[in-house]
Amino acid sequence: MTDAPDLSAFATLDVDRASRRGYPEAVYCQGKTAAQVAMIAANVRERPETITLFTRADPEHAEAVRKELPDAFHDGDARLLAWPPTPPRAKGGLVVVVAAGTSDLPVAREAMLTARYLGRATELVVDVGVAGLHRILARLDLLRRARVVIVAAGMDGALPSVVAGLIPAPVVALPTSVGYGTGMHGIAALLAMLNACSPGIGVVNIDNGYGAGHLAAQIAAPS
Amino acid sequence: MTDAPDLSAFATLDVDRASRRGYPEAVYCQGKTAAQVAMIAANVRERPETITLFTRADPEHAEAVRKELPDAFHDGDARLLAWPPTPPRAKGGLVVVVAAGTSDLPVAREAMLTARYLGRATELVVDVGVAGLHRILARLDLLRRARVVIVAAGMDGALPSVVAGLIPAPVVALPTSVGYGTGMHGIAALLAMLNACSPGIGVVNIDNGYGAGHLAAQIAAPS
Amino acid sequence: MTDAPDLSAFATLDVDRASRRGYPEAVYCQGKTAAQVAMIAANVRERPETITLFTRADPEHAEAVRKELPDAFHDGDARLLAWPPTPPRAKGGLVVVVAAGTSDLPVAREAMLTARYLGRATELVVDVGVAGLHRILARLDLLRRARVVIVAAGMDGALPSVVAGLIPAPVVALPTSVGYGTGMHGIAALLAMLNACSPGIGVVNIDNGYGAGHLAAQIAAPS
Amino acid sequence: MTDAPDLSAFATLDVDRASRRGYPEAVYCQGKTAAQVAMIAANVRERPETITLFTRADPEHAEAVRKELPDAFHDGDARLLAWPPTPPRAKGGLVVVVAAGTSDLPVAREAMLTARYLGRATELVVDVGVAGLHRILARLDLLRRARVVIVAAGMDGALPSVVAGLIPAPVVALPTSVGYGTGMHGIAALLAMLNACSPGIGVVNIDNGYGAGHLAAQIAAPS
Amino acid sequence: MTDAPDLSAFATLDVDRASRRGYPEAVYCQGKTAAQVAMIAANVRERPETITLFTRADPEHAEAVRKELPDAFHDGDARLLAWPPTPPRAKGGLVVVVAAGTSDLPVAREAMLTARYLGRATELVVDVGVAGLHRILARLDLLRRARVVIVAAGMDGALPSVVAGLIPAPVVALPTSVGYGTGMHGIAALLAMLNACSPGIGVVNIDNGYGAGHLAAQIAAPS
Amino acid sequence: MTDAPDLSAFATLDVDRASRRGYPEAVYCQGKTAAQVAMIAANVRERPETITLFTRADPEHAEAVRKELPDAFHDGDARLLAWPPTPPRAKGGLVVVVAAGTSDLPVAREAMLTARYLGRATELVVDVGVAGLHRILARLDLLRRARVVIVAAGMDGALPSVVAGLIPAPVVALPTSVGYGTGMHGIAALLAMLNACSPGIGVVNIDNGYGAGHLAAQIAAPS
Amino acid sequence: MTDAPDLSAFATLDVDRASRRGYPEAVYCQGKTAAQVAMIAANVRERPETITLFTRADPEHAEAVRKELPDAFHDGDARLLAWPPTPPRAKGGLVVVVAAGTSDLPVAREAMLTARYLGRATELVVDVGVAGLHRILARLDLLRRARVVIVAAGMDGALPSVVAGLIPAPVVALPTSVGYGTGMHGIAALLAMLNACSPGIGVVNIDNGYGAGHLAAQIAAPS
Amino acid sequence: MTDAPDLSAFATLDVDRASRRGYPEAVYCQGKTAAQVAMIAANVRERPETITLFTRADPEHAEAVRKELPDAFHDGDARLLAWPPTPPRAKGGLVVVVAAGTSDLPVAREAMLTARYLGRATELVVDVGVAGLHRILARLDLLRRARVVIVAAGMDGALPSVVAGLIPAPVVALPTSVGYGTGMHGIAALLAMLNACSPGIGVVNIDNGYGAGHLAAQIAAPS
Repeated sequence: MTDAPDLSAFATLDVDRASRRGYPEAVYCQGKTAAQVAMIAANVRERPETITLFTRADPEHAEAVRKELPDAFHDGDARLLAWPPTPPRAKGGLVVVVAAGTSDLPVAREAMLTARYLGRATELVVDVGVAGLHRILARLDLLRRARVVIVAAGMDGALPSVVAGLIPAPVVALPTSVGYGTGMHGIAALLAMLNACSPGIGVVNIDNGYGAGHLAAQIAAPS
Repeated sequence: MTDAPDLSAFATLDVDRASRRGYPEAVYCQGKTAAQVAMIAANVRERPETITLFTRADPEHAEAVRKELPDAFHDGDARLLAWPPTPPRAKGGLVVVVAAGTSDLPVAREAMLTARYLGRATELVVDVGVAGLHRILARLDLLRRARVVIVAAGMDGALPSVVAGLIPAPVVALPTSVGYGTGMHGIAALLAMLNACSPGIGVVNIDNGYGAGHLAAQIAAPS
Repeated sequence: MTDAPDLSAFATLDVDRASRRGYPEAVYCQGKTAAQVAMIAANVRERPETITLFTRADPEHAEAVRKELPDAFHDGDARLLAWPPTPPRAKGGLVVVVAAGTSDLPVAREAMLTARYLGRATELVVDVGVAGLHRILARLDLLRRARVVIVAAGMDGALPSVVAGLIPAPVVALPTSVGYGTGMHGIAALLAMLNACSPGIGVVNIDNGYGAGHLAAQIAAPS
Repeated sequence: MTDAPDLSAFATLDVDRASRRGYPEAVYCQGKTAAQVAMIAANVRERPETITLFTRADPEHAEAVRKELPDAFHDGDARLLAWPPTPPRAKGGLVVVVAAGTSDLPVAREAMLTARYLGRATELVVDVGVAGLHRILARLDLLRRARVVIVAAGMDGALPSVVAGLIPAPVVALPTSVGYGTGMHGIAALLAMLNACSPGIGVVNIDNGYGAGHLAAQIAAPS
Repeated sequence: MTDAPDLSAFATLDVDRASRRGYPEAVYCQGKTAAQVAMIAANVRERPETITLFTRADPEHAEAVRKELPDAFHDGDARLLAWPPTPPRAKGGLVVVVAAGTSDLPVAREAMLTARYLGRATELVVDVGVAGLHRILARLDLLRRARVVIVAAGMDGALPSVVAGLIPAPVVALPTSVGYGTGMHGIAALLAMLNACSPGIGVVNIDNGYGAGHLAAQIAAPS
Repeated sequence: MTDAPDLSAFATLDVDRASRRGYPEAVYCQGKTAAQVAMIAANVRERPETITLFTRADPEHAEAVRKELPDAFHDGDARLLAWPPTPPRAKGGLVVVVAAGTSDLPVAREAMLTARYLGRATELVVDVGVAGLHRILARLDLLRRARVVIVAAGMDGALPSVVAGLIPAPVVALPTSVGYGTGMHGIAALLAMLNACSPGIGVVNIDNGYGAGHLAAQIAAPS
Repeated sequence: MTDAPDLSAFATLDVDRASRRGYPEAVYCQGKTAAQVAMIAANVRERPETITLFTRADPEHAEAVRKELPDAFHDGDARLLAWPPTPPRAKGGLVVVVAAGTSDLPVAREAMLTARYLGRATELVVDVGVAGLHRILARLDLLRRARVVIVAAGMDGALPSVVAGLIPAPVVALPTSVGYGTGMHGIAALLAMLNACSPGIGVVNIDNGYGAGHLAAQIAAPS
Repeated sequence: MTDAPDLSAFATLDVDRASRRGYPEAVYCQGKTAAQVAMIAANVRERPETITLFTRADPEHAEAVRKELPDAFHDGDARLLAWPPTPPRAKGGLVVVVAAGTSDLPVAREAMLTARYLGRATELVVDVGVAGLHRILARLDLLRRARVVIVAAGMDGALPSVVAGLIPAPVVALPTSVGYGTGMHGIAALLAMLNACSPGIGVVNIDNGYGAGHLAAQIAAPS
């Protein structure tokens, strides 16, 4: 562990964000060096009163964070770290996260964990794509209890449209880059979601689990 | 009516096609002048033994055809004419045509009429998009009787994926240009269909009702 | 006025939707003939207990609706009709609609009216694009009172990112086709919104004011 | 070999699919970890009465499957495994698979093997691109015996159009990512196929040999 | 007729071009006002020793030209005018122009007339698309006599690839905007031509009949 | 003429802009109704001390402006109005505007007039595309006297690259939508400009003559 | 070396091509395994009377070829092999190959070598991009002696337009993937070439040096 | 160190450029071999009177340069080398470089160093994205002192629009490839910048720090 360094050469921390927006800061690791992330982590250590998330952390980033914050929570699949490691006590409405297929799971987990660290209760439903409708219909009770549902899907991106047609809650559609060829790394799924014939869907960027979880947490915030 | 003219200056009729492929000729009117279409119609009059379809015929084209072939069948919405006007007696399997929404109806009708004039029995199901799943589930019996199902859909193009997951027959996915914005005149629907998570789907060009009907007629041909 | 007709030839009304999803039905007029819209309106007349919206209604559609439902509410710019004409009493949270420029106003009004007919209180803020930041900063008090903010913007689509960074509530980003050249009819604005550096944004289709209003109404629904 | 594990954490098997659709289940390996595939394979072992395909299996996936199902059939080029390893006795019509060039062979083999494991007789024709028409014309007899022809082609994607113009059977067009530059990983071939001037063509996703084989098997199913 | 005006306010004529490049000047009318075209035509009248082409001339442009140059040659379909009206005596090799379908004829004629006014002998072959291969094969003798072949095709753009594989001469591929949906106004045809599996093809812009004719005239120039 | 109206319902004028940025306000007419433009013009009448530009004004907009501001300057081709009509006395460096072809002239004029009304001396050079290099080389003296050169070009967009390689001053590249087919309404020209092999080029949106003129005026501002 | 094997399992050699088209066969190595290429090379050994080119050969392919044909010519940068190694005696016109920058050299060399092995005299000019016009103008004499000029360029792709404007011979435009960002791997250069304001340009696929050389050899063939 | 070699085989140095344009030469290393770069560096050694920049130099390129020019300046993050290593004394106006986020820093540094080696005073501002507006507003004094501001931003590319609205100086917008999914490697940011609702912005290619710095140096040149 090093002393909290001066990071003004490459970062202007938005320390004030929690008070301004009501949600904790997140450090987007992609495109930062491990050394830069380590310096940020060392600064974070000085502010244990708010939770900080490290997103899109590859193994090298994760190691750099954990060197400074050894007890940080880390989910390698979701590429997410959180410190302090304990999520806040859940309040507000329930966030249900649905992953259309097994391959959508890492992004779905990033969304779920984000919502949880922002203070919401969460549930996860997996592998319920529209090729076998009975699978999603079997979970209708849970879906109808949600204040908001996040639906992660790649390929044809059809699941959010189907889910939104079945429930009163808003749906956060989370396209994933799962697929190949004309799937174009998630563009096909994204377009399907933007053109869903059911209203009540808000779409986030491809593979943006953090953004989906953050938006869902805001929607399900206590009034 | 005029004498059958010499049209070698602008067309090389594929008169031999019925014997080679087993299906009648179609005259694609778009991009042809009304005068050119009229000359072709006058030639067609000499060959009453095979049915000729005129596709993508705007009102001016249609008038030109009917001047030469006054008893031709004409469906203005589907922009289709057929002569002689009586479809052949149906043989082979049943072709079911599904239109996701009312706006998909003209293209769906073009598909249905093409299959009928190529000798298949047809059924039409309308306005059963995935935003209200109960509507398509209510027609499952009919869908399961089909030898092939054509599904016309615009917007998110999700319906073929749902239908294919419910039945053993192959699905011909027919994207339509219904929608706006990121629907990009049918591209979003097309991509969803190409990336359907259910196997068993063959896709045709956007708004290509003729192609969908032709393909379905071949699939449902008597063995 | 005509008798409520049999419209099964082209439409399968989702009459059950209000009970299933908790929100009224909307009739998407684009791509339907005036005659089809008239027949639907005649059927709607039989069900005064739930509000029906007619969206993307061109003047011919509007005339057809008002022939059957003479007292329908009609906003020509927003291309929206509603019947019965009186919105329900507002409950739930406040929906603030922000239009970046004057040209974004029709789409923004469609969003605002949709939210209002779905039962929310609404406020409208106009012409506060990022080229003159002081204009949006001057409305910060109102923005911070919202349960959800809809931001309609074309061109660079930068406003949702700025607004989301200033408030705790979720933002519904509504790209419009305002602009030219590389704006590509709203694609540039859409991409900027999907890539916003502020979290807390859900994006809808280009010019989809109805969808934005519906989503906002669900987010601001009473818990 | 391990005991059949509980895989509900990441997969909801569609065990019922064979009875519902009449075709066996396929496990799409891409995007799944080797460990996940191994757990699915262990479950498959409990159901020897239906054939299971593992598609898009890289060497690591293949090893994981074969550890649980040592006698599984494996074609490395086609990235396909099947268990039990013996295809069912062929019934229905003949499926002919045509590969335009040598480089299209892996995808063409995936299509052929899929059709075979779904119960069809198959034939394979290789390296008959349109640059030397005599090569495809020399195989006309075989092509005309087919109930359906799959044509795999990259680059200009011209072959399906030529083949469809020569035979009465429907064509499944299978674009491959073979090519470079403006071939755009198969997009050019795909577009050519969707715009084929011969009717009777259904298109599947780029490199989707499994989908092409599945669709062809359904088309050639015994009536 | 007016006096040859001073057109320096909007045009810098490249009068020197014939001597520098050996080919006459062409005036691209699209985007110019009729008045501007008229002024250019009045100037052209002063230089009868070289032929001037007016391309992409709509009816209003044509009228403006013919007011100044009453005996100018005019082909309305090809949107081309030439003055003086008599083409030069043909020298160099034969240019054969092939139009895949009737709808490709206007662009093909523009190419043929351009080559003719640049001093080449030309032949035109129409409606010989790949859907009926026998049609193009029947013209093989003519094609093999050409010094260069221009192939105009829309939709799948497959014909240049087939033609190039049959002859020793180079092929100028001329994509047209004929088609719909994923044809994307000629982009699909263009891509197929750029990715042709036969070598020996040079591609010009979509609907650029003038460019194709010019290039062919240069290729077939006497050595 | 009407009294200066209250336009807060659809516009929040940035009256303060001249003092904040040092440049006058511009009213973007496209997407505004004639009535809205008229109301803005009536307000402008109250502030004769700063020049106001009305850009992208179609004839109806222009008429609305001139009803309120009868002496406004109006260039119909450039779709620009200015009031008060007299440009400020020129100071700072020279702005040279180059139009590659006659069809690029309207956009080039919009750029030139904008720079002039923002207080710069301007010169215009027309029809000097790269197909005849001698034309641009002949104007080298003028180009080298400029503090900044705006180059408007459609089609291949090659001219800015050539000009930038010849002079020390910065170049504002202004792509125009002149062209057809793969020109894609200016996208091809834009891409060429962004990828120019000469450094020293800043690119603006397609057909954005106002933006180019504004930027050039800032670059050529007196130090 | 092995015996000439039976390669019918993966290739249908077009042995007849030299007599049909008058040009030798080329083996496109990309997408073939080294073993497949080796088997083809062993077969080639039986036909020393015609030259065979191996294109897009990576080091592993090259090694496989040279094991069977030890004296084959090999240019590693151009990824080309030829056997027998001696080019034919040059006849016909001169082919000049121009590379805009050093990075375009490998593709330019592939074009030059192809033309040479197809029997043409060739010259190479390097690093003469439009950013410094004097460089290309200094080579005008050579350019004007050519029967055809190949111009390889990436980035803005402006050079073919400039060259075509200076000479009477046709230009083969060869876009390269040199560049970054909006160069989009050669798409920007390709579009500029297709939209060149000089006529007389035929474009080939990105990085398709072989195709450019083949086309040039055909254009420069002895009459 | 080697003798200055003859590099005419692959490069035509533009030694005259400094006198013609007034700015030093830059060697674009990407796509050149290390050996080619070394040969150029050896030649550069003969011309110490003008500064030469080596851009987009990977570590291998850098090593090659420093072997010939051991005292060259090298910034590994910015991939830039300069020789002689001392920048010229600053004259002209101030160039301020703004990096929206930490990940934009390498490209921003390339821009800043280029401007510095072209003779301008520079300042760097980091991590001031629009998600926290207070950060950029805090630097307004510095921004208003600039003769030109370079703004490097990825993701939504919103920052140049905001900055341009706050200052009188022109803005050079420098999109970076920072982001993921629909960011499309910088295309989303580029489009936002081209469609900025503030005038006064010139855009360069994605990640083109060198181009941005060069343009800014020209804009801030002493009059």
